[in-house]
Amino acid sequence: MRELCVVGLGLIGGSVLRAAVAAGWTAWGATASEEDAGTARADGFDVVDLVEALARAQRSDALVVLAVPLPAVERVLRMLPAGVRLTDVVSVKGPVADLVGRCAPSARYVGGHPMAGTSASGWAASDVALFRGAAWVVAAEDGCDLDVLGDVVRLALAVGAHVVPTDADEHDVAVARVSHLPHVLAAVLASVGAEGGPLALALAAGSFGDATRVAGSDPDLVRAMCEGNRNALLGAVDDALGRLGAARGSLASTGGLAKTIDAGHAARGRLDALRADEGAEVTVDLAARDAREALRAVGARGGRVVALDGTTALARTF
Amino acid sequence: MRELCVVGLGLIGGSVLRAAVAAGWTAWGATASEEDAGTARADGFDVVDLVEALARAQRSDALVVLAVPLPAVERVLRMLPAGVRLTDVVSVKGPVADLVGRCAPSARYVGGHPMAGTSASGWAASDVALFRGAAWVVAAEDGCDLDVLGDVVRLALAVGAHVVPTDADEHDVAVARVSHLPHVLAAVLASVGAEGGPLALALAAGSFGDATRVAGSDPDLVRAMCEGNRNALLGAVDDALGRLGAARGSLASTGGLAKTIDAGHAARGRLDALRADEGAEVTVDLAARDAREALRAVGARGGRVVALDGTTALARTF
Repeated sequence: MRELCVVGLGLIGGSVLRAAVAAGWTAWGATASEEDAGTARADGFDVVDLVEALARAQRSDALVVLAVPLPAVERVLRMLPAGVRLTDVVSVKGPVADLVGRCAPSARYVGGHPMAGTSASGWAASDVALFRGAAWVVAAEDGCDLDVLGDVVRLALAVGAHVVPTDADEHDVAVARVSHLPHVLAAVLASVGAEGGPLALALAAGSFGDATRVAGSDPDLVRAMCEGNRNALLGAVDDALGRLGAARGSLASTGGLAKTIDAGHAARGRLDALRADEGAEVTVDLAARDAREALRAVGARGGRVVALDGTTALARTF
Repeated sequence: MRELCVVGLGLIGGSVLRAAVAAGWTAWGATASEEDAGTARADGFDVVDLVEALARAQRSDALVVLAVPLPAVERVLRMLPAGVRLTDVVSVKGPVADLVGRCAPSARYVGGHPMAGTSASGWAASDVALFRGAAWVVAAEDGCDLDVLGDVVRLALAVGAHVVPTDADEHDVAVARVSHLPHVLAAVLASVGAEGGPLALALAAGSFGDATRVAGSDPDLVRAMCEGNRNALLGAVDDALGRLGAARGSLASTGGLAKTIDAGHAARGRLDALRADEGAEVTVDLAARDAREALRAVGARGGRVVALDGTTALARTF
């Protein structure tokens, strides 16, 4: 059974370590935060310094999980042993792949991104159940190492997630729309509400509270995430600006918001329908030459890998 | 004890009827929906036709609660007995006050607006606990009837809400920012996400799900609510467009989002701080000449009325 080395023990890395150990994996971690290291050790986890953690990963051919914020990725990459099995949980995939190509070109890298989080951060916020029911993106790039891809899929499934296969570019465009733009809009809405003074905040109910929840997240982490996906996020922001401007124009000229509200209702309906539909079973052989394309086709249709038996991935798709 | 006549038995009106009866009030309702009337009667509530409901209200000097959507308000107003005690739960206050002045000028009207709801609608979605812990706006306009204002405060407190006093214009500007704009942004975000196709929706997690929740609401009700507050909503949309445009410009030119994200974080912090602060106790005598101004001053500071003893309102404010 593959062993696991988690670098970075904040909300996501800490939760990976907790959940992998709970699933029976041999796993250890390293973190630059003295505080996170101390509390993780006090909670009974195997936390060593980064050099030792990576040396141990090399000896046991472990999978290394990069769970540091994007600005800290390059420093860790430059310390990696040659030929290491490598994945990450960073919220953008193109920029990380570029960094790996430049700073750790011999790494057997398959990018990952679990779509889970809370507005809290640090080891103290980590949770063994964080990934249960969540989507875990795996970047099935042309030419990627299928053996390591299998490791990442096994890890994601072991911690209770399902795997959505795609590639780095498709991932970055998609998360700009459904993860990074929501953070920008939450910040904008929170500011517009607070600009209304104490009365407006006293009247804020569920719609405002829910829509601004992620504005409570650590602003440095949110900035690192959003700024790291600059190009794709610009496209998503422009789409939102266009739609909001159209709503403004319609409200000002005709007094009507039918197009905006009806389109939003239909769109939310598509999300609910996708979540309610179990999809049909398909299998993908991870040892086959066309495995990467077959996996990406599953993700492109909104499908997911839900089990892995040897090299046979069981997916549900539409 | 005041009796209660609820006109309109959807989510809000139905919940008012349920909660008032549970609090020991004598209350009856009327609705234009045969379906809501049938299920409400089957649930054991006193539902009669509108003419009879209003005649009974006149005989017993009951408080009439208008709980129909804005487009249906005028028709009900034209049927009201002269001099009736009247409040409403419509999500805009200026347009309703204008309609009352035109169609039912003798009504002793004090506007109200409970800040509670779900994305479901109709009697079937009504809930005896909907208003527990919610803000219930009462419009303490210059010259309004303080006796009826007391009725509305007693009703709001009886169903578990706290009262935020303000006036119609301040209310409409505030809810444009914290209630109507969130619906428009939820629709815009849902559309931007769905435009990303099945992959984007498959990757949508908590931030997208929470921020688009209200896009699942009945689109006709959302339109009636937002379009009814057109002028104030235009101001809130323009504020959002300006801030989102500034974020776009900053991201494109410098790659940074510090100003947007930091401001949003601070704004969300002000909401959390207001909710965590109990405030200081003050009392307002509803029989005093300056009662309306004193009440509005409480709301303007983000405060609320939490109890009423005779004509003495106990408020918590900042």
